[in-house]
Amino acid sequence: MEDRLSSPSMFIGVQGKGIISFGSGQPDLPPPRQVYSILPTYRAFKYGLVQGQENLRKALSKGYKGSKASNFVITNGASEALDLSFRVMKPRDKVLIHAPYYYTYPHLVAKAFLTPVFTETHEGKIVLEDFDKKVRECKAVLINSPSNPTGRIQDIKTLKEIEKITTDLNVTLISDEVYKDLIYERENYMLSGSHVVTINSFSKTFSMCGFRVGYLYSNDPSFVERIVNLKTYTSMNTNILAQEMAYEATKVPKKYSSSQLKIWKERRNLIYNGLTELGLDLWKPEGAFYVLPKIKEPRKFVWKLFKKYKTITYLGEWFGAPNRVRFSYALDASKIEEGLKRVRKCLKEL
Amino acid sequence: MEDRLSSPSMFIGVQGKGIISFGSGQPDLPPPRQVYSILPTYRAFKYGLVQGQENLRKALSKGYKGSKASNFVITNGASEALDLSFRVMKPRDKVLIHAPYYYTYPHLVAKAFLTPVFTETHEGKIVLEDFDKKVRECKAVLINSPSNPTGRIQDIKTLKEIEKITTDLNVTLISDEVYKDLIYERENYMLSGSHVVTINSFSKTFSMCGFRVGYLYSNDPSFVERIVNLKTYTSMNTNILAQEMAYEATKVPKKYSSSQLKIWKERRNLIYNGLTELGLDLWKPEGAFYVLPKIKEPRKFVWKLFKKYKTITYLGEWFGAPNRVRFSYALDASKIEEGLKRVRKCLKEL
Repeated sequence: MEDRLSSPSMFIGVQGKGIISFGSGQPDLPPPRQVYSILPTYRAFKYGLVQGQENLRKALSKGYKGSKASNFVITNGASEALDLSFRVMKPRDKVLIHAPYYYTYPHLVAKAFLTPVFTETHEGKIVLEDFDKKVRECKAVLINSPSNPTGRIQDIKTLKEIEKITTDLNVTLISDEVYKDLIYERENYMLSGSHVVTINSFSKTFSMCGFRVGYLYSNDPSFVERIVNLKTYTSMNTNILAQEMAYEATKVPKKYSSSQLKIWKERRNLIYNGLTELGLDLWKPEGAFYVLPKIKEPRKFVWKLFKKYKTITYLGEWFGAPNRVRFSYALDASKIEEGLKRVRKCLKEL
Repeated sequence: MEDRLSSPSMFIGVQGKGIISFGSGQPDLPPPRQVYSILPTYRAFKYGLVQGQENLRKALSKGYKGSKASNFVITNGASEALDLSFRVMKPRDKVLIHAPYYYTYPHLVAKAFLTPVFTETHEGKIVLEDFDKKVRECKAVLINSPSNPTGRIQDIKTLKEIEKITTDLNVTLISDEVYKDLIYERENYMLSGSHVVTINSFSKTFSMCGFRVGYLYSNDPSFVERIVNLKTYTSMNTNILAQEMAYEATKVPKKYSSSQLKIWKERRNLIYNGLTELGLDLWKPEGAFYVLPKIKEPRKFVWKLFKKYKTITYLGEWFGAPNRVRFSYALDASKIEEGLKRVRKCLKEL
């Protein structure tokens, strides 16, 4: 029964009539039309540069002050960028992660033969005292703001402090900013410095999850070189056509993002108010499209909601948040409303 | 100067006026037209199944007797299939590799914290006596027939013996068969058994290198599950559009491959005869599109040929074959002829 709830992968790609999914963390709205515009006449087929196509890297560099195309590596989504970043580190080094965390992080760290160290958060916010203590034994820190699964952002003051501490200690600062264009409260604060590895993707901002185009940005040429070397062995270039589609996305006017953000904010309000009305204890999402309420007997809840009410949610436990359940609200308002009704019924029965 | 010859990656994607490349191992002829046919109307964008799209896996299973769609995982090229296969093994286990080998093999093995063990070959053919001795300390064997960089195939008798030995010893047998459709001498002999992991791709057979669609096939459900779990962390689904393009490729009539093979065979004859006439010591390629002649002072030769004669070749040293140089003949007959002229001049000068 509910013991079968092993990991989010059991739900990835699961679709079907009547199923409402608060599971998958992907936009439901299609990408800007421009990304498809190159398809009809596309005829390339050869290997591309392992580092990624020059036009795309150049376009990206315009968004990162003081950067050049050579500071970027195009990857199979942010996932591969993270995986490669960990794999070029020295085995047995420690990596500091704030919990709750995106569920793949500890696995990626362990698979690179590194050791995860966790710093707890208060209402999704990093507690600097604990951070400062634990970072001293670590060689890298992984920051994810806005966070999947909490939907919380770190305060700019905190981020600046983290920048300073990691600079002083010579600790690599990996910043997973895939939700940087989905912040409801303020502009993104980009962590920066020669010790920073910024990871991003086209998946969330441009609804291009299935195409798997991510990238990493680093000012350290030797880091970039190690990444490219490793990627030469492990996967070669990222799909050439997807890179061209991503390049088209870089030309999409800024107002696209802001109109998307408006939709996300409405949905955020809808689910936040809905879950609050159900009496659940939760933090208000400030970015991304997740909310992580406390739920009694979360395993039973997730299982029953799926089996009886055809509604997918993810166990908080997978994200280092036992007693909680993750809802993605990357779906149509009408579906969020219907889903909330099902949640209400399910909660009553438990 | 020639010290800068560090690895093939320095040449990957290098193009320019007047450059002749015997370097890159990729077909120069375009893919069958059908693979582009779906592009004009393509509009999907969401995550696909991490294991790969059902239609593609079903189509693949038709080519593997007794297999089901669930036995396949679609990957970012054969490279990722290999990387994942090694990464799900137990750290510190030993992997037997026949030398000369594809240059990424030892790196991939080491990056998975496994230890490579090398068995020498005679004229590119596995010597069973040495194989049988060394395999006993190993947990996996990696076979690549036809071989990159030698262009040689293993005798069917040898392959059957390897199948038997590895079955008896319960050793995983990883078979990289990306050149299986490019054999000039006989049909491919597919290694099989529940301990076999077959790795293949659409890159060579269908000239789809840049699209990065490979796959692995295993009859062991637990192996497939471990691969899918890991891929969920490291890269998620392979590009959804490339998978549909690959699916179109599976519908291409068989005669496509045989007409391609005819072209490859002509080129093989051209370069084999040309290099033989130059007095070089080499093995006749039986498959793939590589030839690996002995060259005196290979490092000087490769560097001079590149710098002075704008002709790219790869150092045999990168492939575990010092004293040799790899030529890919994946290029037009006229270019092969021009390249041979340059090689002649360069050899004279050294």
